[in-house]
Amino acid sequence: MHHDPANWQTYLVTQESASNGRRTPEIVERALEGGIDVVQLREKGLDARDRYEVGRVVRELTAEADVPLIVNDRIDLARALGADGVHVGQSDLPVAVARDLLGESAIVGCSVSTVEESLDAERAGASYLGVGAVYGTTSKSVAARKDGIGTERIEAIVDAVDIPVIGIGGITDENARPVVDAGGTGVAVISEITAADDPASATETLVETVDGQEKPPE
Amino acid sequence: MHHDPANWQTYLVTQESASNGRRTPEIVERALEGGIDVVQLREKGLDARDRYEVGRVVRELTAEADVPLIVNDRIDLARALGADGVHVGQSDLPVAVARDLLGESAIVGCSVSTVEESLDAERAGASYLGVGAVYGTTSKSVAARKDGIGTERIEAIVDAVDIPVIGIGGITDENARPVVDAGGTGVAVISEITAADDPASATETLVETVDGQEKPPE
Repeated sequence: MHHDPANWQTYLVTQESASNGRRTPEIVERALEGGIDVVQLREKGLDARDRYEVGRVVRELTAEADVPLIVNDRIDLARALGADGVHVGQSDLPVAVARDLLGESAIVGCSVSTVEESLDAERAGASYLGVGAVYGTTSKSVAARKDGIGTERIEAIVDAVDIPVIGIGGITDENARPVVDAGGTGVAVISEITAADDPASATETLVETVDGQEKPPE
Repeated sequence: MHHDPANWQTYLVTQESASNGRRTPEIVERALEGGIDVVQLREKGLDARDRYEVGRVVRELTAEADVPLIVNDRIDLARALGADGVHVGQSDLPVAVARDLLGESAIVGCSVSTVEESLDAERAGASYLGVGAVYGTTSKSVAARKDGIGTERIEAIVDAVDIPVIGIGGITDENARPVVDAGGTGVAVISEITAADDPASATETLVETVDGQEKPPE
């Protein structure tokens, strides 16, 4: 079930430099305990060799938990790690190239912020969309920060495409619910989990928040 | 013949930011006219999408000239472009991973600066070595500049391994000859060609210099 993006309610994007001095494998281990649905190895700023070394540990942890591992940007690293797929942005290799190199069964995600980019990514073979930054973001450098696109954009994109939409950017437990209320499949976070005092319970809380509406009335 | 690194006497490493405002395809076209043996798409600082776009043009030019194209660092980009191989450094994905992902027939080069790194790369399946920086380099940021390892190191590495050794780093037409005299198969340059007023004639001059010893006496 975890391997179908249609079931991804909570999505962790790793970033050791935003983990308060803790290593990424430790954060991933705790997030898996907390019930995270999918993990993306991001680690911007690490060179490829270091990402490969960290990724090998993360791959073991996610495989053990039967949770999919997605690799940011690098299709070669995804293949080298035996990851489930790759996530590309607008300045990475195109979705069509990723799809071509990884094959039909791989998961290929794409970062978009507009309806047009969403339709392009879907046409090119994307399995799901990472849409944002929903609320702006604090995980990028000050210069790269922008205002959020808002949940209305999530709604517009959900209306336009047939693939799962994951909101990302500035999402916390407090503001996660409106993303799924707007039709988003789930939410992706970095610091909400990586910087939490207790990444396991932060994940658990987020899972409960996002999953809230699914619970049948008692 | 060009597709065997044992025949690479002159090796162009592209870097648009060191090309005096000219685009990389223009430099490559001129270097091919001048008789370059192999081209490496480097373009540090460009994002993957831009490297892919530039690379597609360069791939056409090199294929037309029947000159091999090697891609720096990214194995996925090498595959996407249908390049002949990849060149990895000590902080890129390991040689063994590149060999595994690209297969036995691909060319896999590796940047090394010591005998130990050279032996490791050869054992891991490297097709050739880029050894340097021979004379230090001006193509890296000031902070990254180091003294050169010198041609004695070239000699030591040539003695230690059975794969072709290409010298790189600070090489000009004036100091290229000692690299091949030390047993190097050839020399790799960036700015000697990319920053030349006339990249075609700069290439031609370098080809003549490096090829000098091979000419049979008349």
